[in-house]
Amino acid sequence: MTKRKIVLAFSGGLDTSYALVSLREQGWEVLTANIDTGGLHSGEGESVKARAEELGSAGHFIVDAREELYSRVVTYGIKANYLRNGGYPSCVGAERMIQAEKVVQVAIENGADAVAHGSTGAGADHVRYDAVIRALAPNMEIIAPIRDERLTREFETSFLTERGFEVSAKTTTYSINEGLIGTTIGGGETYGSWEYLAESAWTYTKSIDDAPADGVELILSFEKGEVVAATTADGAALTEAGAKNYAILVALNELGAAHGVGRGIHMGSTMVGNLARVGFEAPGMLTLIAAHRELERLTLSNRQQATKQQLGTTYGDLLHEAVYYDPILDDLRAYLDSSQTRVTGDVRVKLHKGNIVVLGSRSPFSLLDAAERQGVVYGYGSSMWTGEQARAFAHMYAVPGAIAQAAASAKPV
Amino acid sequence: MTKRKIVLAFSGGLDTSYALVSLREQGWEVLTANIDTGGLHSGEGESVKARAEELGSAGHFIVDAREELYSRVVTYGIKANYLRNGGYPSCVGAERMIQAEKVVQVAIENGADAVAHGSTGAGADHVRYDAVIRALAPNMEIIAPIRDERLTREFETSFLTERGFEVSAKTTTYSINEGLIGTTIGGGETYGSWEYLAESAWTYTKSIDDAPADGVELILSFEKGEVVAATTADGAALTEAGAKNYAILVALNELGAAHGVGRGIHMGSTMVGNLARVGFEAPGMLTLIAAHRELERLTLSNRQQATKQQLGTTYGDLLHEAVYYDPILDDLRAYLDSSQTRVTGDVRVKLHKGNIVVLGSRSPFSLLDAAERQGVVYGYGSSMWTGEQARAFAHMYAVPGAIAQAAASAKPV
Amino acid sequence: MTKRKIVLAFSGGLDTSYALVSLREQGWEVLTANIDTGGLHSGEGESVKARAEELGSAGHFIVDAREELYSRVVTYGIKANYLRNGGYPSCVGAERMIQAEKVVQVAIENGADAVAHGSTGAGADHVRYDAVIRALAPNMEIIAPIRDERLTREFETSFLTERGFEVSAKTTTYSINEGLIGTTIGGGETYGSWEYLAESAWTYTKSIDDAPADGVELILSFEKGEVVAATTADGAALTEAGAKNYAILVALNELGAAHGVGRGIHMGSTMVGNLARVGFEAPGMLTLIAAHRELERLTLSNRQQATKQQLGTTYGDLLHEAVYYDPILDDLRAYLDSSQTRVTGDVRVKLHKGNIVVLGSRSPFSLLDAAERQGVVYGYGSSMWTGEQARAFAHMYAVPGAIAQAAASAKPV
Amino acid sequence: MTKRKIVLAFSGGLDTSYALVSLREQGWEVLTANIDTGGLHSGEGESVKARAEELGSAGHFIVDAREELYSRVVTYGIKANYLRNGGYPSCVGAERMIQAEKVVQVAIENGADAVAHGSTGAGADHVRYDAVIRALAPNMEIIAPIRDERLTREFETSFLTERGFEVSAKTTTYSINEGLIGTTIGGGETYGSWEYLAESAWTYTKSIDDAPADGVELILSFEKGEVVAATTADGAALTEAGAKNYAILVALNELGAAHGVGRGIHMGSTMVGNLARVGFEAPGMLTLIAAHRELERLTLSNRQQATKQQLGTTYGDLLHEAVYYDPILDDLRAYLDSSQTRVTGDVRVKLHKGNIVVLGSRSPFSLLDAAERQGVVYGYGSSMWTGEQARAFAHMYAVPGAIAQAAASAKPV
Repeated sequence: MTKRKIVLAFSGGLDTSYALVSLREQGWEVLTANIDTGGLHSGEGESVKARAEELGSAGHFIVDAREELYSRVVTYGIKANYLRNGGYPSCVGAERMIQAEKVVQVAIENGADAVAHGSTGAGADHVRYDAVIRALAPNMEIIAPIRDERLTREFETSFLTERGFEVSAKTTTYSINEGLIGTTIGGGETYGSWEYLAESAWTYTKSIDDAPADGVELILSFEKGEVVAATTADGAALTEAGAKNYAILVALNELGAAHGVGRGIHMGSTMVGNLARVGFEAPGMLTLIAAHRELERLTLSNRQQATKQQLGTTYGDLLHEAVYYDPILDDLRAYLDSSQTRVTGDVRVKLHKGNIVVLGSRSPFSLLDAAERQGVVYGYGSSMWTGEQARAFAHMYAVPGAIAQAAASAKPV
Repeated sequence: MTKRKIVLAFSGGLDTSYALVSLREQGWEVLTANIDTGGLHSGEGESVKARAEELGSAGHFIVDAREELYSRVVTYGIKANYLRNGGYPSCVGAERMIQAEKVVQVAIENGADAVAHGSTGAGADHVRYDAVIRALAPNMEIIAPIRDERLTREFETSFLTERGFEVSAKTTTYSINEGLIGTTIGGGETYGSWEYLAESAWTYTKSIDDAPADGVELILSFEKGEVVAATTADGAALTEAGAKNYAILVALNELGAAHGVGRGIHMGSTMVGNLARVGFEAPGMLTLIAAHRELERLTLSNRQQATKQQLGTTYGDLLHEAVYYDPILDDLRAYLDSSQTRVTGDVRVKLHKGNIVVLGSRSPFSLLDAAERQGVVYGYGSSMWTGEQARAFAHMYAVPGAIAQAAASAKPV
Repeated sequence: MTKRKIVLAFSGGLDTSYALVSLREQGWEVLTANIDTGGLHSGEGESVKARAEELGSAGHFIVDAREELYSRVVTYGIKANYLRNGGYPSCVGAERMIQAEKVVQVAIENGADAVAHGSTGAGADHVRYDAVIRALAPNMEIIAPIRDERLTREFETSFLTERGFEVSAKTTTYSINEGLIGTTIGGGETYGSWEYLAESAWTYTKSIDDAPADGVELILSFEKGEVVAATTADGAALTEAGAKNYAILVALNELGAAHGVGRGIHMGSTMVGNLARVGFEAPGMLTLIAAHRELERLTLSNRQQATKQQLGTTYGDLLHEAVYYDPILDDLRAYLDSSQTRVTGDVRVKLHKGNIVVLGSRSPFSLLDAAERQGVVYGYGSSMWTGEQARAFAHMYAVPGAIAQAAASAKPV
Repeated sequence: MTKRKIVLAFSGGLDTSYALVSLREQGWEVLTANIDTGGLHSGEGESVKARAEELGSAGHFIVDAREELYSRVVTYGIKANYLRNGGYPSCVGAERMIQAEKVVQVAIENGADAVAHGSTGAGADHVRYDAVIRALAPNMEIIAPIRDERLTREFETSFLTERGFEVSAKTTTYSINEGLIGTTIGGGETYGSWEYLAESAWTYTKSIDDAPADGVELILSFEKGEVVAATTADGAALTEAGAKNYAILVALNELGAAHGVGRGIHMGSTMVGNLARVGFEAPGMLTLIAAHRELERLTLSNRQQATKQQLGTTYGDLLHEAVYYDPILDDLRAYLDSSQTRVTGDVRVKLHKGNIVVLGSRSPFSLLDAAERQGVVYGYGSSMWTGEQARAFAHMYAVPGAIAQAAASAKPV
């Protein structure tokens, strides 16, 4: 009798290692899929593969999803200037979507009966995985052993060691998740709300103290809201010609990290409704969003900025909350794309001792220049209107307020 | 025949000095009113008074509006976390409202026929003044000579020197406006969009370079969204007991400035519709908003935060744009007040080399603690639900997406 | 050994009759609570009680929740002008909240261990019940037999008849739910989207055909957004002095029904995410909302109306979707209350052949009258501004558009 | 010396007749442009032309703008379901935009120095005209004699009769404006807020009393949100094949009018800020919007509907308020277009004694059908989830409320 086939999203960590062995023992033919969304260190892909094979994978797949993550998710995060709860460039939610899509694809292509993932039931990741799998493969069975059986890391460790598999003795205080968009750091001080993360918890950003005294100036160039070049003040490009679409983000992650930029602690509601706190390092996204936003101030009308801010927040929140298949996402992307028609130009930023200082911006579509061409200089007079017209404008502008005051003072008989 | 009486909002600068003499020569009895919204340096009130008398004021009034500015405007700015265009703690718009109200009050109390102000017609201030005057005193005549006659600073200078009045030779590159909420710096590099303000342009904040290597840690305590105490890490209060309501803001302005905190350049649309760029220094407001926002993350639901963010932006924008008498402001304040019911607790912040680092927060209404009391710890299991319930939740959460996918794939015949 | 005690929300219908007997047989001491939210016909309370006793209730409670439903829910529905999906004065969601609260209260007061309700698992009601019970009595066990065991009406009928209990032979095509706010009609044609409800399906509203040729004119008087009087054109009050707070709503339900007013079919998403369609009859709510909205047009600024419309929709949607305990509801109520400060006055409406025609309105806070007092008559000239000021206003109003056009036409080099 | 040339938007009414003669006497060479936006009765174009020539037009242009008005304005009004202040399918604002654009075009093509229009300064039309002219032809002089000189109709009448021109004795109580989208009726009872328009005021809609006892059933077919066919219940098309794009709207205006559909009184704020009241007849737009909205309920997610409602309102309000050139309009149109991807299908409506009764709808993208295909029937069980999953969902859905209640009950020490 043929074994039933299952594809397991495999990272090589404790949870997915347990899942691989356990599913195998339950009689499944287990294929493993390792999806790279920027979190793999150089060469780690091979060691993950070796681990999968050691644990009995019947076939291991490595999928590089970085370009797709960048083009489908990162670009819209920047167009939206999305910061969850006003501060966090939501990393994980969107990565999980891409990872789950890729795992489903491997499962379909290999005729699998089921998909497995190592998520616990305490966070949002298991909801994210299931949302994708059920939408794209409604009849695919889903198994998430750690969640479904509510297992502890101790249980999993014993399970594996009993079977002769080595388990890393490293019992870290923190749970780290690395990706192109950012790295998150859970556990430790973040279980409470009062303490800041210990210096040792941060993975690759320097502290303000350790950052060099002199900052670095950059020019970031955008076309229709997407960054197309990053150069230093002396004109050297940060990335090579023909680099991958995510290369500038990676370069800014490195450069920002060196200058103490990009740390933060996110505190926000999960999908279940409880509050969660997690540290993050995301120098590149924070820098790109700060620069992009300045360019929007220069080229978008106030109404465009205000409505975009709301819709961008909605967009990012939906992605974060695993609402991947509501067609409103298409509508929101159409809006965001349209809004970027003239978000083209350069932004000067300085990374300096933890600060992202936006120094200036310029654009062929600059509203400042357009007004100046028509004779308006702020603070000075303007050839677009006379003193008498300005006076009349103030007079008329005051009419609704005067009527409102008159109406408010009416007294019911 | 009695002279007609006019009250002039008087700062002692060139524009209002010109206005005083010019109105007097046109036959007005000119009273002068100097409204203190935090911009007066110690002792300057007296020198402004002396200048008014020298120029022929028929009566000089000094009104200290700082407490009122704080209680009516600053507190709601913080409750709203208001940053115009996402970055600027709008200083000037609200100050002008308070100033205009006080001038109107002096005018009414002194039986004046008219009110005068020194605004030009190129910015928003003249609209702000007129909005207040026309709503509160619909029959009061309004004269704004610089706007109405579109005068230049050169003309005004000649006018005064010809009459023997001294005019400060200081022809500054920058136009500075100081107030409790912040200081704005117009002119110079801000006429364009590409250059940053020169170091010499900043008035009281240190540069990142000059800020001390060691930052300072503070605990800011809030009750229902209003800051009630600020202490250093070793428990020393920044302000004396019984200090004015704005004392903490003033203390944070000073302390933040010393640590290089609070600088920025605002670029946004004026009421007329052209873009303007202006530097600002507002260490206190930026620190209070950052701290307050963290406390909201700890105590408000996600829905509360999201809706409040929108309404707070609307509120601040209306004030900035001189829509002072639309009754929606009352509704928005009612909303903001209600939202602060549980925004009580402490926030730890560190001011360090230009950065405002929020370290942690705590509150008796902490949503993190409330969940923990019910057995929820993020990342761990939860006694509020079982593995099977978590699995079922993910299953159900995926239903709408699965239906949406099914509907989308339908093909019209 | 003492039996464990459970309180069952009991309506006397098939589902709750089954639940009562079944729970009793499982060893529970079953108390029954019948909550009146306006759906009980005169005298029906007694027959429900008799049925409960026949089926073995260990104690029957009747709670009249109509006044509370009106003051806590109906008034805010009108203040919000809430129509779900733009058409349906959401009836059921809010009623379930009140019913669940009352059942929990009976359970707590009687020291019960559990609460039971007869909801199925296909709609939203079971979620609504559980939301209330878990928030107000976190340790109370919840049993919803029809949902939990996924029972069919056939099974329940057999179960009861086998035990000698009579079951109404009436196998209606439609599932009717009556309440103060409205009556809903599920089943039949509403399972699809194309057919309209058969004439026989409607429970108390006349058809347009059967409504009298002559309509009826009414004057509805509001104070701060709440209706306080309803009189016919000749001055006769629809309700007696000292009537219950919901008396006007009941009277308008009757009068509207006689004139063919109040029918509709609602089609909207459930909480689970699938679409549902259901007929409704709500003449009173629709009439009150139409009248109230007109009074708001007369007394609220445009900004007030626009923001209130959004927030009112959010408020109603949250109630409909059982988000009863998010504190944002308090904030939204604070906003709605503030917005009604001047929504005082009279509205003339005509109920006529299915139409609710709003004829006119008046208010001491009328913005039309306030402007007229200042010399503004629409279409005529205005003493508030001159021709030259109007011309200048148009000139200035056009500035942003002219700048935007200039900026848009810039071409990147 | 050559005369300076001006193009006058000419309707043949009193205001534009005066303007023509007056401008001519001031030395202008006056060209007249008559823009048809659906308000011209058959053959009236010729009589307007004759009048222009009689009064001394140096060249008369007739521009048929109906197709463009339909494709650029009407379609988006329906996609947005736009009703100003919740009731009025804003007619005039968008028509003025199109009219002004056409007049500017005539002016540019004929090398004119100036543009003239007959607007008064009391309404919004003069602002609308100027907004277009200044954006499209910044250097074109604008003359609006009635506004600029604040003339009365009496003065204009005397002026013309003194010069031997006949002026229609018809001094109507009402000011009528006819167009494709609707007809507005100003004056008379609408100067106040209490009285309804007299029966004689309505121009082409029947009263409820006079409408036939039997209504008419229609099927309206949409493709991507645009109506493409209208047929009666027996399958007869309302319009001929190959008819103009606005033919269905015109046919529905006629058919609705016959059934007493489409009357209303709009009361809303003008751009200046005072309140205005005006009757309208718009049977076609109201019918199309009602039908279109039902189709959206069937095919759009709840989130899509909610956000679209807000953005559609913003879109319509901006057009109404003459904000024609803010690029946000492009973004909003991109959103609206995207949202209509699946708004394809048929809607059954009945026009009956003033009522627009939506009977049913169907679509290949029906969310109701998609759920049914997956085994969900509202009110019944569902094969998409089990009883236990439903129970767990309710359990989890209640978690945030339970935590919120726990947090709220905390008491500060």
